Amino acid sequence: MQSCAKSWGILFAKSVNSHAPCRHISGKSRIFGKLQTRIQNRNAFVTVRGLRTSAVYASSRQIDRILPRHDDFAERHIGPGEREKREMLDVLGLESIAQLIEDTVPESIRIQRSMKMDDPLCENEVLEHLQKIASKNKVWRSYIGMGYYNCSVPPVIQRNLLENSGWVTQYTPYQPEVAQGRLESLLNYQTMICDITGMAVANASLLDEATAAAEAMQLCHSYIGVKTVLKLPHEMDFSGKDVSGVLFQYPDTDGRVEDFTALVDRAHKGGALACCATDLLALCVLRPPGEFGVDIALGSSQRFGVPLCYGGPHAAFFSVKENLVRMMPGRMVGVTRDAAGKEVYRLALQTREQHIRRDKATSNICTAQALLANMAAMFGVYHGPQGLKHIAERTHNAALILAEGLKRAGHRLHSEMFFDTLKVGCSVAAKDILERAVQREINLRVYSDGVLGVSLDETVTERDLDDLLWVFGCESSAELIAEKMGERVKGIMGSPFKRTSKYLIHTVFNSYHSETNIVRYMKRLENKDISLVHSMIPLPITWKEFANLHPFCPLDQAEGYQQLFRQLEKDLCEVTGYDKISFQPNSGAQGEYAGLAAIKAYLNSKGEAHRTVCLIPKSAHGTNPASAQMAGMKVQVVEVDKDGNIDMANLKALVDKHKTNLAAMMITYPSTFGVFEESIDDVCNLIHQNGGQVYLDGANMNAQMMGAKGLVHATEVAILNANYMAKRLESHYKILFKGFCAHEFILDVRPFKKSANIEAVDVAKRLQDYGTLMIEPTESEDKAEMDRFCDSLMGIRQEIADIEEGRMDARINPLKMAPHSLASITSSTWDRPYSREYAAFPLPFVRPETKFWPSISRIDDIYGDQHLVCTCPPMDVYESPYEEKRASS
Amino acid sequence: MQSCAKSWGILFAKSVNSHAPCRHISGKSRIFGKLQTRIQNRNAFVTVRGLRTSAVYASSRQIDRILPRHDDFAERHIGPGEREKREMLDVLGLESIAQLIEDTVPESIRIQRSMKMDDPLCENEVLEHLQKIASKNKVWRSYIGMGYYNCSVPPVIQRNLLENSGWVTQYTPYQPEVAQGRLESLLNYQTMICDITGMAVANASLLDEATAAAEAMQLCHSYIGVKTVLKLPHEMDFSGKDVSGVLFQYPDTDGRVEDFTALVDRAHKGGALACCATDLLALCVLRPPGEFGVDIALGSSQRFGVPLCYGGPHAAFFSVKENLVRMMPGRMVGVTRDAAGKEVYRLALQTREQHIRRDKATSNICTAQALLANMAAMFGVYHGPQGLKHIAERTHNAALILAEGLKRAGHRLHSEMFFDTLKVGCSVAAKDILERAVQREINLRVYSDGVLGVSLDETVTERDLDDLLWVFGCESSAELIAEKMGERVKGIMGSPFKRTSKYLIHTVFNSYHSETNIVRYMKRLENKDISLVHSMIPLPITWKEFANLHPFCPLDQAEGYQQLFRQLEKDLCEVTGYDKISFQPNSGAQGEYAGLAAIKAYLNSKGEAHRTVCLIPKSAHGTNPASAQMAGMKVQVVEVDKDGNIDMANLKALVDKHKTNLAAMMITYPSTFGVFEESIDDVCNLIHQNGGQVYLDGANMNAQMMGAKGLVHATEVAILNANYMAKRLESHYKILFKGFCAHEFILDVRPFKKSANIEAVDVAKRLQDYGTLMIEPTESEDKAEMDRFCDSLMGIRQEIADIEEGRMDARINPLKMAPHSLASITSSTWDRPYSREYAAFPLPFVRPETKFWPSISRIDDIYGDQHLVCTCPPMDVYESPYEEKRASS
Repeated sequence: MQSCAKSWGILFAKSVNSHAPCRHISGKSRIFGKLQTRIQNRNAFVTVRGLRTSAVYASSRQIDRILPRHDDFAERHIGPGEREKREMLDVLGLESIAQLIEDTVPESIRIQRSMKMDDPLCENEVLEHLQKIASKNKVWRSYIGMGYYNCSVPPVIQRNLLENSGWVTQYTPYQPEVAQGRLESLLNYQTMICDITGMAVANASLLDEATAAAEAMQLCHSYIGVKTVLKLPHEMDFSGKDVSGVLFQYPDTDGRVEDFTALVDRAHKGGALACCATDLLALCVLRPPGEFGVDIALGSSQRFGVPLCYGGPHAAFFSVKENLVRMMPGRMVGVTRDAAGKEVYRLALQTREQHIRRDKATSNICTAQALLANMAAMFGVYHGPQGLKHIAERTHNAALILAEGLKRAGHRLHSEMFFDTLKVGCSVAAKDILERAVQREINLRVYSDGVLGVSLDETVTERDLDDLLWVFGCESSAELIAEKMGERVKGIMGSPFKRTSKYLIHTVFNSYHSETNIVRYMKRLENKDISLVHSMIPLPITWKEFANLHPFCPLDQAEGYQQLFRQLEKDLCEVTGYDKISFQPNSGAQGEYAGLAAIKAYLNSKGEAHRTVCLIPKSAHGTNPASAQMAGMKVQVVEVDKDGNIDMANLKALVDKHKTNLAAMMITYPSTFGVFEESIDDVCNLIHQNGGQVYLDGANMNAQMMGAKGLVHATEVAILNANYMAKRLESHYKILFKGFCAHEFILDVRPFKKSANIEAVDVAKRLQDYGTLMIEPTESEDKAEMDRFCDSLMGIRQEIADIEEGRMDARINPLKMAPHSLASITSSTWDRPYSREYAAFPLPFVRPETKFWPSISRIDDIYGDQHLVCTCPPMDVYESPYEEKRASS
Repeated sequence: MQSCAKSWGILFAKSVNSHAPCRHISGKSRIFGKLQTRIQNRNAFVTVRGLRTSAVYASSRQIDRILPRHDDFAERHIGPGEREKREMLDVLGLESIAQLIEDTVPESIRIQRSMKMDDPLCENEVLEHLQKIASKNKVWRSYIGMGYYNCSVPPVIQRNLLENSGWVTQYTPYQPEVAQGRLESLLNYQTMICDITGMAVANASLLDEATAAAEAMQLCHSYIGVKTVLKLPHEMDFSGKDVSGVLFQYPDTDGRVEDFTALVDRAHKGGALACCATDLLALCVLRPPGEFGVDIALGSSQRFGVPLCYGGPHAAFFSVKENLVRMMPGRMVGVTRDAAGKEVYRLALQTREQHIRRDKATSNICTAQALLANMAAMFGVYHGPQGLKHIAERTHNAALILAEGLKRAGHRLHSEMFFDTLKVGCSVAAKDILERAVQREINLRVYSDGVLGVSLDETVTERDLDDLLWVFGCESSAELIAEKMGERVKGIMGSPFKRTSKYLIHTVFNSYHSETNIVRYMKRLENKDISLVHSMIPLPITWKEFANLHPFCPLDQAEGYQQLFRQLEKDLCEVTGYDKISFQPNSGAQGEYAGLAAIKAYLNSKGEAHRTVCLIPKSAHGTNPASAQMAGMKVQVVEVDKDGNIDMANLKALVDKHKTNLAAMMITYPSTFGVFEESIDDVCNLIHQNGGQVYLDGANMNAQMMGAKGLVHATEVAILNANYMAKRLESHYKILFKGFCAHEFILDVRPFKKSANIEAVDVAKRLQDYGTLMIEPTESEDKAEMDRFCDSLMGIRQEIADIEEGRMDARINPLKMAPHSLASITSSTWDRPYSREYAAFPLPFVRPETKFWPSISRIDDIYGDQHLVCTCPPMDVYESPYEEKRASS
């Protein structure tokens, strides 16, 4: 694939530099994987706390006895109290937790040493400590740009969405009946992206702009089906029909606005796709890529109301032409109908996803930056088209004033057509300008040739412009320059680049511009979704010292962040037993890809480029095969035995077969079947002896950890919880892989298909009626919650028995009709062979005053995939307060 | 009433000093009242913002046109957009808002000048500005005590309760069907207070400890019925049977723990009541006042998880013996049953309240510090009895270690029996100790005689103790002292003062100690309550620079607060036209009392002590007569005419009659009938000419304001909203006082009593079914919300007509049966002559997926008052997750 080297280079640089504390992946690191990426992913602070605050240490000091720590976060975080733990052990017939661990975790894999970590802190001490760390970050004004811009986070959105655990703690909305709020907001996001870019379809966001760019190229490659080559722009030649795609940036990293229409045409004529990395705010006044034939438009939506956070998580957008929709990577929200015929939302085209297609998948993306996409969507909803245009014009005007001032001061602009970014050839030594910038605590972009860059944004004030003019040695002021400019200079607004098409005309973007209305709207959506609403909010993320740091600011302004990273790295190395940690990957899937890429590079460096076979057990995460294929490896599946362990005989045979080409083995540990592989050491040795490397997916690495007391205790309780539940359920359901389990276990519901025509989906939907969705009992759940969950599953088992034994209709029964929405239960019409109460309040703990109601009836996935709609449907599916009709008496 | 002068003096001093920026009330201030107290009352920041951020100013500068302010808080805060305003004016048949104002606000009372206020700021600028102000406060460690203690605010409560608009923006829960969550939490508070103090009944909190002490004396006075005399403790003599009560402090302000049993006995024998000001944390290890015969126990619950906030709002508790329950001042939550027979909560004994008894009332208290009482209650729920005892012991142990160290350094303690506070006779010059304290940024209490005081609290660490020991010149360390002390020194725990009785044994205080559980509990309560969920959260209150300042810290540590006060005073003087503002009163009712007390003092100082008559129109707030009586005045009611204006003829006659004894007139302006008094100038002149003063209750003073543009616009929209609604409703209901109204209006539903047996309460309860409770249309409501409200009222009017005309049963109809809880609608049994849909979804905008449901059926007030229960009922009314019974099929 060809590309403008300039744009492409920038995108790649972003990916490399966006996390300044990047560490290389050590050759000795045979195992690295998900752990660090999970921790990094905006939960950094929570996890730091988790690591630093653990159980009370036994102390020999008298003062520790009479003046003990007054609150203990680790204990607060753990659900079951002492009495409950005792009760659970009794059910399991065990003397102690120690005995449970002995029976659960193979001795061969338990770490014997104790871990070196700092003393535990109580929660308020942690906050105080973090405040000190935060104060080491210096919040200068950054005009560096390169994909990261200051923005005004509307406080009303910050408080009610970003800092609201009702929005923060949600998992993938696989159960759309209890996730309509979030899905509606993501649909707003997709609609906004389509409208602003002028494209037909957008997904619900990707991890970051670099990932989006890589996915665009991947899409071109698999769509057109020819190999990818990187070339400089002047070398671009589509005539050979051997080019799959071109990626360019508009406006580009230097701020230039160019007309790419001809390039796009040439690409199309040559059979290639055109991909455009672009900027949402610029497109509010600039002709959008969809209007000059672009096939894929992508970029970051950070500047739509998401704090900089030193390059921390932001949602990337990805939008395509209609014909590419089924090639779209990542999550996409679509419109479908429910069992009652109502228009509703759900994740569309899930069958494309790698956890279903496994070894056929070409993308390992299974996440969206949902929270940050929702923030950007609400930013659009709050400002509306007029507001966004206002912000864009204002930003552009600021750049026009600055440009005029710079020219007066004798500097040279690299481009006369720009939106918010100026590349400046200085008329004096750049060093002098930078010195003045330091005096005013301003960061500029420094090009290697001494040329400087300035990127403005919506937060720029007259005073900021005056400071910048002074820094660049301009003797005039913004006010005077503006006065002289008058109405003359119009920039984009007076050029053919000016956007003429409308956007965001949908009512949702024109209704919630007052504070009262946006809060009510967010609250309405939030209340439709079941939410864990239980985790502490990662407060520090919104402290200005963390929030307002540009990722490319000088290192000495980020000392607070550096300290956090160093501490986290030290603790993670201690926990994992490794030497170096990479904080680079932005998701588990990226961790897999990075790990395999590192292994491949390592093998290549040893002259063993022929090693390409990757062994993956059936028990591995679904993303593993996709990652292996993306890293250019060939996947070989390894069997598991009846207990869920790796089938060692099969493994040995496969290793023997592939030993000359063996590159790696990927192991999910503990496995998705909830099993600790007792043979893990043997497996690693076998692979190493045959020249391969081992990649470990540590999705629940807690269970490996066994070090500092707080972590140990959390792990123990998680294991206790899982085994308690398995014990309670074992006489009702078949549990796969008997014996004590690790952190999760699997109930086998396949027999019910034959006996009662009940499938897993029916059980999952019926659980919504019981209000209990939990399936992975972490340490923070208490016994009462686990009991409710077990009671629910036992109740459902009884319902299945009622069908099996003919007491309940085989077609119209609470399982097949689940979930039961409030609308169906409160309707005058009720012709089911079971009662309203049985449907909605099947156990005494499900009560009218506290029940969480699915807001819709069961989703129709097939209809949605057949009638794909991924933008906001017309307004009549929303509430209309103006109707005059009354319900009949 | 007699009292220990010491304790009494301290309580009074608190009242005087707790708001350091106190200004005297100027003699020239004829009118002062609610405005300042409303603003001060923890909304300070919101209101500052309101005052400082208003509409866009027209500017002559070109840069303001091309670089306009990018967001406008004032516009965001106003509900209706331009189009909606136009539509509303059309309904009213008006050309412009200016015309509306001309027709509404009498010209004679409109201010002609423009106001001098700072330029408006956008919201993010305000936050930045406040951060700068905050940084001027210095957060030293304060060990001053005197009723204010550092405490660890559990972050989980801070985030999910204090900073959660779902809990913050609630009004008095007069509609208990949609306020069960808050009522349950306040009942927890009452239960906690009763348990810890050992008393029988507690109220839902009072404004502050000083108010609580005053109310205790007031209660003694009206209960015993003899006059009050202040005496020193050694002069105490109950033998004359002419003493109504005694108030003492336990532990006292110097930290001493004394045995008051004998004093209480003597008081009782002399026919007096015993009142005890006390400390909740101390009582967790100390014998409670209820166990030595005290009649009234009171104090502050600040140290139960509420930040210091420079003495800002905290909940005071007030608890009494059983026989005094009907004399209890303030709000009290009680248990009753609803129409379905379920145990539920509501405000008890409302008939005692001054807004019902008006001129018979003896207390003007109509508020509780509900939010802060709820914080304290959740603090108790989160820690439970073990946790609280742990905190108390730890705090006490810290004091024991410090005491030991001080004695070793040669200092003398004024008392050997203390909880957390030491009064220290220094062995060296106090000046030297204080100098060292400054070096470590520590505040101590300084007695006038050079003696020093130290009050410890739950936040004290070993390092803090080491610093204090160093400050006092002790060469040892906390660790070494603790080592030497061993188990020997037990303080309270080894004395007869040790508490032996249990407390907080109710399940609610023993169930939510994990983070997961407390969040879910708070969320469950929050979701039962209808909430405005619309106002910006006063974020800065939780910034440490505002939160952690002790009210008696040196002024130079509070420069940020001082700046806020100065700015607020300047703006308020500008708005009101007065010279000085008092920030002293803590509520509207306190403002009334303070105002009348100042008037009385002013008259007395002129030798006119005989002036005691206070004229109060019928249109005044219900608290006015109570305040007048508390200030020692005689109330004379003034008639109003049919339009709601003061009846000038009646007023003139009354002034004439009382002119020699006329003290004051109280006016609520605009009146509670929503009317601007055109004759306000005449009224004031008449009173002044006859030697009286005018007190103005400025509950909606916005409407007077007419100055800075943002304020003007907000006022205009509030008036527009009210008049639009009145217009829409006027053909359906009789509206009292026709013509254009000010900010509110009154619908007359009295005729329906006769025609359909429908009363106001039925309409109010039925409005819950419609999900629209709004009755005062402020500027932040948009047209759609007002239309929904009008549609609801019109729907209800139609329902009344259906009864009147025989189409609906006169007894079983949706109004009499309102509100309809979810339990009643979803029940299999439905035998009403109207449908489920008609009951629950009477208009199309009331939909299953968004409807807010009353969590209970209609409350039974009479039953509750007859069976008064004001602490948590037994657990079976709460949810029990352990029941095994299933709903029948």
